[in-house]
Amino acid sequence: MVKVAILGATGYTAVELIKILLRNPDVQITAATTRQEGAPPIHSIHQSLTGRLNLTCEDLTPAEVCQRAEFVFCCLPHVASMEAVPGLLAGGARVVDLSADYRLKDPVAYEKWYGHAHTDAQRLAATVYGLPELWAERIPHQNLIANPGCYTSASILGLAPFLKQGWIDPTGIIIDAKSGVSGAGRAPKLNTLFSECNESVSAYSVGNKHRHLPEIEQVLSEASGQKVEAIFTPHLIPMDRGIIATIYARLKRSATDAELLAAAREFYRDKPFMRVVEHLPTTKDSAGTNYCDITVRQARGQAIIISCLDNLIKGAAGVAVQNFNLMAGFPETTGLLV
Amino acid sequence: MVKVAILGATGYTAVELIKILLRNPDVQITAATTRQEGAPPIHSIHQSLTGRLNLTCEDLTPAEVCQRAEFVFCCLPHVASMEAVPGLLAGGARVVDLSADYRLKDPVAYEKWYGHAHTDAQRLAATVYGLPELWAERIPHQNLIANPGCYTSASILGLAPFLKQGWIDPTGIIIDAKSGVSGAGRAPKLNTLFSECNESVSAYSVGNKHRHLPEIEQVLSEASGQKVEAIFTPHLIPMDRGIIATIYARLKRSATDAELLAAAREFYRDKPFMRVVEHLPTTKDSAGTNYCDITVRQARGQAIIISCLDNLIKGAAGVAVQNFNLMAGFPETTGLLV
Amino acid sequence: MVKVAILGATGYTAVELIKILLRNPDVQITAATTRQEGAPPIHSIHQSLTGRLNLTCEDLTPAEVCQRAEFVFCCLPHVASMEAVPGLLAGGARVVDLSADYRLKDPVAYEKWYGHAHTDAQRLAATVYGLPELWAERIPHQNLIANPGCYTSASILGLAPFLKQGWIDPTGIIIDAKSGVSGAGRAPKLNTLFSECNESVSAYSVGNKHRHLPEIEQVLSEASGQKVEAIFTPHLIPMDRGIIATIYARLKRSATDAELLAAAREFYRDKPFMRVVEHLPTTKDSAGTNYCDITVRQARGQAIIISCLDNLIKGAAGVAVQNFNLMAGFPETTGLLV
Amino acid sequence: MVKVAILGATGYTAVELIKILLRNPDVQITAATTRQEGAPPIHSIHQSLTGRLNLTCEDLTPAEVCQRAEFVFCCLPHVASMEAVPGLLAGGARVVDLSADYRLKDPVAYEKWYGHAHTDAQRLAATVYGLPELWAERIPHQNLIANPGCYTSASILGLAPFLKQGWIDPTGIIIDAKSGVSGAGRAPKLNTLFSECNESVSAYSVGNKHRHLPEIEQVLSEASGQKVEAIFTPHLIPMDRGIIATIYARLKRSATDAELLAAAREFYRDKPFMRVVEHLPTTKDSAGTNYCDITVRQARGQAIIISCLDNLIKGAAGVAVQNFNLMAGFPETTGLLV
Repeated sequence: MVKVAILGATGYTAVELIKILLRNPDVQITAATTRQEGAPPIHSIHQSLTGRLNLTCEDLTPAEVCQRAEFVFCCLPHVASMEAVPGLLAGGARVVDLSADYRLKDPVAYEKWYGHAHTDAQRLAATVYGLPELWAERIPHQNLIANPGCYTSASILGLAPFLKQGWIDPTGIIIDAKSGVSGAGRAPKLNTLFSECNESVSAYSVGNKHRHLPEIEQVLSEASGQKVEAIFTPHLIPMDRGIIATIYARLKRSATDAELLAAAREFYRDKPFMRVVEHLPTTKDSAGTNYCDITVRQARGQAIIISCLDNLIKGAAGVAVQNFNLMAGFPETTGLLV
Repeated sequence: MVKVAILGATGYTAVELIKILLRNPDVQITAATTRQEGAPPIHSIHQSLTGRLNLTCEDLTPAEVCQRAEFVFCCLPHVASMEAVPGLLAGGARVVDLSADYRLKDPVAYEKWYGHAHTDAQRLAATVYGLPELWAERIPHQNLIANPGCYTSASILGLAPFLKQGWIDPTGIIIDAKSGVSGAGRAPKLNTLFSECNESVSAYSVGNKHRHLPEIEQVLSEASGQKVEAIFTPHLIPMDRGIIATIYARLKRSATDAELLAAAREFYRDKPFMRVVEHLPTTKDSAGTNYCDITVRQARGQAIIISCLDNLIKGAAGVAVQNFNLMAGFPETTGLLV
Repeated sequence: MVKVAILGATGYTAVELIKILLRNPDVQITAATTRQEGAPPIHSIHQSLTGRLNLTCEDLTPAEVCQRAEFVFCCLPHVASMEAVPGLLAGGARVVDLSADYRLKDPVAYEKWYGHAHTDAQRLAATVYGLPELWAERIPHQNLIANPGCYTSASILGLAPFLKQGWIDPTGIIIDAKSGVSGAGRAPKLNTLFSECNESVSAYSVGNKHRHLPEIEQVLSEASGQKVEAIFTPHLIPMDRGIIATIYARLKRSATDAELLAAAREFYRDKPFMRVVEHLPTTKDSAGTNYCDITVRQARGQAIIISCLDNLIKGAAGVAVQNFNLMAGFPETTGLLV
Repeated sequence: MVKVAILGATGYTAVELIKILLRNPDVQITAATTRQEGAPPIHSIHQSLTGRLNLTCEDLTPAEVCQRAEFVFCCLPHVASMEAVPGLLAGGARVVDLSADYRLKDPVAYEKWYGHAHTDAQRLAATVYGLPELWAERIPHQNLIANPGCYTSASILGLAPFLKQGWIDPTGIIIDAKSGVSGAGRAPKLNTLFSECNESVSAYSVGNKHRHLPEIEQVLSEASGQKVEAIFTPHLIPMDRGIIATIYARLKRSATDAELLAAAREFYRDKPFMRVVEHLPTTKDSAGTNYCDITVRQARGQAIIISCLDNLIKGAAGVAVQNFNLMAGFPETTGLLV
């Protein structure tokens, strides 16, 4: 029985994690943390867990967490995460960090994009970025995995085949992404009120101001061995979950739709969660699953790549469990094919 | 030119009020208040007003408001409203109060339901309840009108014809009401986040715990001259606006659908905003309008009354302007038939 | 390996069935039928099944289906179902019929409510109604199970504890039910277009005109040994899935909320999919699951019962698999606790 | 009193047209056509019009329409429109055609994109494209106006200032557009069912296959005097109405956000429906209005232009009334500022 803890159990990612982990009979969730007082039972925070998990949420220190669990999913916000992770690792826990704190390799970039000096900067360079479709072999023996962002995964998984195989120009890429509202988290804010975002679409962070951009460029640059530059525009869509990234990239040579699809299929051969499809995927096709659906068309010298995934699952909790499965020695798909 | 002010200009009711008032060329909006610092322009609070109204929102005292306006729409929350209204009236303003503070006649009931002693209790008995379909003749000469609640209007307008004409039993009434989320206001709260209430329906205040119940019973008892008792269950629906009240009441004598419809039609003859319809109305039919749509069917000795209206308009800002129109001497429908 | 077939594979219930059955490694889906020409692969009808099930949909006769499968889930519309079932049974298949064709015991009632003479009427009386929470012991040895309707299950499961234990009056019951749009099926119709039902609520079949009413009354009358009479009003809610039934019933004796909750808890002790909760459940709590969430409050001599379930799962495909599990000898919860 | 008729009164554009025209006391709607039998009253087709317009929908010939009306709004689908327009013009009516039939100048392009030979091809070259923000002076004396498409207007109004003033490269433009579902019309189809498109986003016509592309390029090429080439990808968004076009275009010279905003403001000076805004507009800001909201940011040598409008109003019925107002001699904003 593998004992796991969840730090920051009140958010949308945490409840998805719990539901996935409950499907693995060899895993036991032994701790869930919150700063809320009174040790509330988990089902009072997430009513959907009623009858499914008997656990109270406590305000535990990293050391206390390590006494209960071998593996820790850290669902804290950025900054809070890098304050907790060193203690978790020191206490012997192996950590999947779902925050942004260990994703960027460069502490200067971290400070620029997140507005805080990194307090655990010496760990950044060696931390593995947990995108199993690119780097599964790096993950099993790690003690700390930086779990990818949701927009990031959708963008990277759409672009990687074409960048690595040299079909497209690494600069001038346009990523126009659309996400359901759960990606904005569960803290009450005006702009995520139902009456504000229902029946409305809006772009935000327009002009390359979104924090997922440096992450996308860093990973794709490393993966393809060339400097990748993009313009990234996220949009808020009136739906709970799902991301579609519509990506425009200049083809370096003429190609048919069929050739591009074949290239993507070959690239993702044997990747259990990648579905390269001929039809145009909707976000609903992959909602509630760990799949990422990809297709591609060409027009006027551009590849138009469509990449869809569930932001809470393949974009967060699902890939976190993929990483955990690889680290803990479970089959990669455990709990994730339902 | 009639000068009007809006107290509490940041909410959803206020922006609807403004849009309606802008249609009356003889009205000028001269003040809008907020506690936000910095005198923000109204269009920074409500982007939809960009280019439509050049006004800053200020933190004004009642006395300052009275220097700018003859009429005041008070969109403050309860308690805040009864703190402002006496000063407004003392300053010579005529007030439509959209809060609940002057709706209940009995200060004991007020304190029970709202958890605060009423600080302006001597004014309660004489304040006119502003539902023009029942009491239009009372409104023109008032200086203070208590504007009805949204669930209240839907419920009262559905029941009034049948109670006043003696078709139904005044007790044992079931009001099962469903409202769009805007009725819950614009203050960020967990339960009105998009990701909480989208794709979900829930009942709340179950067991006669909602504050609109005493208001419904008070008004219907007065209107029909008998003690009316109901069970009232509100539900939150994943849509921006609209209320449907599905009402069950025991028929005192056997009646056909046609007889019941005819009775309602006769009751609302010449009421410009009441549409008694044979078809089953949807909330969308009246969304964005000041109409209230009503129909009725009978089964097993019960009348099943359907009443639909837009909670922000006929349930708040629209009826407020009806009241204002009557007070200021404009035709009742001014700005309201679009 | 148990071989199963799905008749009428193009609808929303069928895709849910498939997803549930895929979780049982001892089940193989060997046939799926459609009248569409060209033997389309199942993933071209349900894109979400891409990569999950390699099967073509064919236009098969009952006899052909019986050559491929021991168990058949019949997701055909009413009338079509009673044309297929006799052949399936004759061919040796065991059938869970998700249509309404075998739910009512009385062929006269069937003809009245469905507008067709029943062509397999002699089978009605003996067919078991497949609601395992009431009659699990009847199900295992059957060859034909009538799977309950979605509104029906929500209503019955809410009322059964209180009717069987004598807390409430069996007549004068009001069931005000609200359903997501998927309950209306996948055939293109004006009133289920997005632009018609989004941002709108409407009642339909008002005045006891909905076909689930006789089913509710028949089952509850049998279960409680008394004639049960209700008024049933369904509403269409702008969400994909989920039903909430708000039920009003006169208490025969005074009771506290706690007593009523305890009675329901006792009634559903050891029922794995029934969650009797103190909080007010939302439809989202049980969406995507086979749970039914129930709570109760009292006011003015009435019990107000709230019952929530996912119309496609606990209201259709999930309970169908519960029935199948009992028939095939699998644990009742197989595939249903995720 | 100006008499107007509406051909094809059953769709979403027609009901918006009617609501706008009802605000002009000098206009009388004298005819509305449908192929439905039985001369249904307009409020049975559009329940929201109950009590607002007393008119039956009839199956009238163009000649019959001309006997009743001086102006005709043709809301028929393409092909049906070009069959009706010659007769309307011959009968003396002045026509605003909301279909696509008279938008493209080149009958070869029409046939390529619409799959039908144009049967009134000689009229194409001289027909004025009714986008008043570009060509108001051309409209007043016309007898036939081709009303723009919804995506087209959003795209053109966003790009025109920057193309005409030479800020951006006329080729390599990316238009990533997102529309509410009402844009797909009111005919029941699988892909516009609530349960299909709710909680989902999808791209369609990917790879420059959408019919609004040639219209966009034709108009922008003419307006800017250079060959404009774009990639256009539309997306279906789970909301009733609203379009946001996110447009990427290479800047020909370096520019700040402020310079680009100032250029757009100058371009649209005195255009009553154009709001050039500094903030990021949402589609909700302009929903239900005839406004088009535009802003712009730059990043990495690209201008990122955001253009929002209501697809049924500024994208269809509203601009149609703008054109009608100019043709009939009413102020351009009549009925459109509410």
